[in-house]
Amino acid sequence: MIPVQDLFEEARLLDSQDPLAAFRQDFFLPDSSVIYLDGNSLGRLPEKTRQRIAEEIDFRWGNRLIRSWNEQWYHLSAETGDLIAQVVGADRETVIVCDSTSVNLYKLVMAAIKARPGRFTILSDDLNFPSDLYVIQGIIQQLGAGYRLELIHSADGVSVQPEDIGKHLSKDVALVVLSHVAFRSAWMYPMKEVTDLVHHAGALMLWDLSHSAGAVPVGLSESGADLAVGCSYKYLNGGPGAPAWLYIRKDLQEILQSPVQGWFGAADPFEFGLNYQPATGIRRFLAGTPPVLSLAPISIGVDMILRAGMGNIREKSIRQSNWFISKVREHLVPAGFSVESPLNPANRGSHVSLGHEHAREICHQLIQGIPAIIPDFRKPSVIRFGITPLYTSFSDLAHAVIALEKLASASSFTGVPTGDVT
Amino acid sequence: MIPVQDLFEEARLLDSQDPLAAFRQDFFLPDSSVIYLDGNSLGRLPEKTRQRIAEEIDFRWGNRLIRSWNEQWYHLSAETGDLIAQVVGADRETVIVCDSTSVNLYKLVMAAIKARPGRFTILSDDLNFPSDLYVIQGIIQQLGAGYRLELIHSADGVSVQPEDIGKHLSKDVALVVLSHVAFRSAWMYPMKEVTDLVHHAGALMLWDLSHSAGAVPVGLSESGADLAVGCSYKYLNGGPGAPAWLYIRKDLQEILQSPVQGWFGAADPFEFGLNYQPATGIRRFLAGTPPVLSLAPISIGVDMILRAGMGNIREKSIRQSNWFISKVREHLVPAGFSVESPLNPANRGSHVSLGHEHAREICHQLIQGIPAIIPDFRKPSVIRFGITPLYTSFSDLAHAVIALEKLASASSFTGVPTGDVT
Repeated sequence: MIPVQDLFEEARLLDSQDPLAAFRQDFFLPDSSVIYLDGNSLGRLPEKTRQRIAEEIDFRWGNRLIRSWNEQWYHLSAETGDLIAQVVGADRETVIVCDSTSVNLYKLVMAAIKARPGRFTILSDDLNFPSDLYVIQGIIQQLGAGYRLELIHSADGVSVQPEDIGKHLSKDVALVVLSHVAFRSAWMYPMKEVTDLVHHAGALMLWDLSHSAGAVPVGLSESGADLAVGCSYKYLNGGPGAPAWLYIRKDLQEILQSPVQGWFGAADPFEFGLNYQPATGIRRFLAGTPPVLSLAPISIGVDMILRAGMGNIREKSIRQSNWFISKVREHLVPAGFSVESPLNPANRGSHVSLGHEHAREICHQLIQGIPAIIPDFRKPSVIRFGITPLYTSFSDLAHAVIALEKLASASSFTGVPTGDVT
Repeated sequence: MIPVQDLFEEARLLDSQDPLAAFRQDFFLPDSSVIYLDGNSLGRLPEKTRQRIAEEIDFRWGNRLIRSWNEQWYHLSAETGDLIAQVVGADRETVIVCDSTSVNLYKLVMAAIKARPGRFTILSDDLNFPSDLYVIQGIIQQLGAGYRLELIHSADGVSVQPEDIGKHLSKDVALVVLSHVAFRSAWMYPMKEVTDLVHHAGALMLWDLSHSAGAVPVGLSESGADLAVGCSYKYLNGGPGAPAWLYIRKDLQEILQSPVQGWFGAADPFEFGLNYQPATGIRRFLAGTPPVLSLAPISIGVDMILRAGMGNIREKSIRQSNWFISKVREHLVPAGFSVESPLNPANRGSHVSLGHEHAREICHQLIQGIPAIIPDFRKPSVIRFGITPLYTSFSDLAHAVIALEKLASASSFTGVPTGDVT
């Protein structure tokens, strides 16, 4: 049995020494009986976002109406992009917010393929988020004529080493698409090392930073990467389905062409000319009108991250993840759990995945419990625990360890209703 | 000079006899000094939407967090689509809400082209919304190899007759893409007649219903049309940049394939398999995660339209448009204005466009005036007045006629700052 009181005391002590602890109060916390460890899937609601959306609704939509396009909305995609650029270490005017991650990936992969004629392979790995692979498969099918997706398989289901990528690179590879931090295991690639390898082979490098932005420091410009996409609703706390973002290195912006030529990507959308003229710069990768109510709040969450500082966030993330993993190894591995994330924090993002034969049922019961502890389940048998340093406390993690031990040792698994979508 | 008092009295009498007058109070009207005639561009904010969004923020995001995907959000795209289907006369499970109009058009045009191999022409007209033409131009460029966009030119800048379309149809036409109601002139095509012509030539028919949905009754299923797209932020009052919708006739749903294969279009998004399996039915045309805060409010505006009844809305729209046009002809044509919309209401949507040499400056001054009268300007020289029967009053229109006459007769046009985006 876990020494429950000792664990809580240790957690409380660590919380009392946490320099980022005050940020938790900047989030809306209506239900103290919820311990939320799924910020890697949907970030919490910042308090200021409530106010910002109310202003957006009542003042900008309700009162200013169409005039708000001139007064503010038209610039939101670029302005919010510039803020996110600061989070991921990118230059100004290289990031823009629009569409979903899948649509942005589609636009960038199509553009990249056209920029590498005579090369027919897109390289990825089986740790990548399935939607990314689906998008690429759709493109391959559409292009036909010899185009192919080559998948590097992870030997341990957790990681792929840069050497493995090196082995798959050839003169036929046009583009490499990888998740910087893998959605299931939290494996994190050394971004610059991989990008250099890919460039050495003459291919373009596209990073999916959905599980990185706001979770780990990302030196996007410094890495020399060509392209990136990412979502805004995880560690950036932008809200459910908040529009995603895309990055194009400055010198590529005038070379690449979006396959989806909508009016917001035109040089002057309100010229209403019959022939498309692309905007200069990153704006040409916009397509249609952006969803303002979902776009406007993103800057609030991003601003909190910038105020806290990515270095401080990373430091706490590692401290919390290491502490959590040490408790797991001490108390939960004997109860049938395994750590399915890299043990070295240098190769790990900001969530920790635990494997268990009955992971699905254990996750379900965690969520149903009092307090409700909310991580998420990922097939086949992994529970992910998101460490989101702006609002995750050591006490939250202690609660999770204790509940997991209790559930696993009860050992009467009777199955769980299927059909849940998250 | 206009008999101002007489005009207002006439308008007030008509307002007092208006069976839809009560709906105006269901909108948020914070500024009584604004006369809003741009609902064809951005619809007003329904009162209930404020409450619905607050609930979405505080309860679903703030409190239920990730659990809301199971509890509600996952089904929003399809449920809202079914509501919009009722507005445009489409069957259940033929409409889904997602992405922007431009992205949806891209998906459908790409899919349609693949379904008509050996045909290389996409036919459209120069009345179509430029973004639609831009998207098609991008596709043509991407496909290369003989594909072309053929544009039917309107002789009068207002309309294109079905016979003209007939003349351009051939065995090379794969797809015809038209705005049902033209964004500039409000010209409205006879939907079934054109669709029949197109089908007779073996081509597919795609309607852009952005200026039709909620503005005029649309018999989409009855017309036999293959495909349609539309936006939600005009007459449907869904909010700025609210996600758009797309329609695929039932029997085509299993034949067509979306080029953008995202996880929300997969048979089981949360299976996380490595290989894409499309969902059955319309859902396969979803791509990434939808922007929930922009999507959730759409049902509120749509519900108001269904309660009012499209027949009643159309009746009032015609009554108001006819009255407005009659006053324009009486008082404003002598002052240099022209009517740039069809005079026959059977061929006209729910906005009225007026031409004037100094349209840009007059529009600018209208918006700066007290009361602020808000229509919109469209190049080269048209001012559009949106008739949105749920909240437009005859008195609003009387204000516009009086202000226009006053501005035009002042006749000292000194230019207007450029750079406004709407």
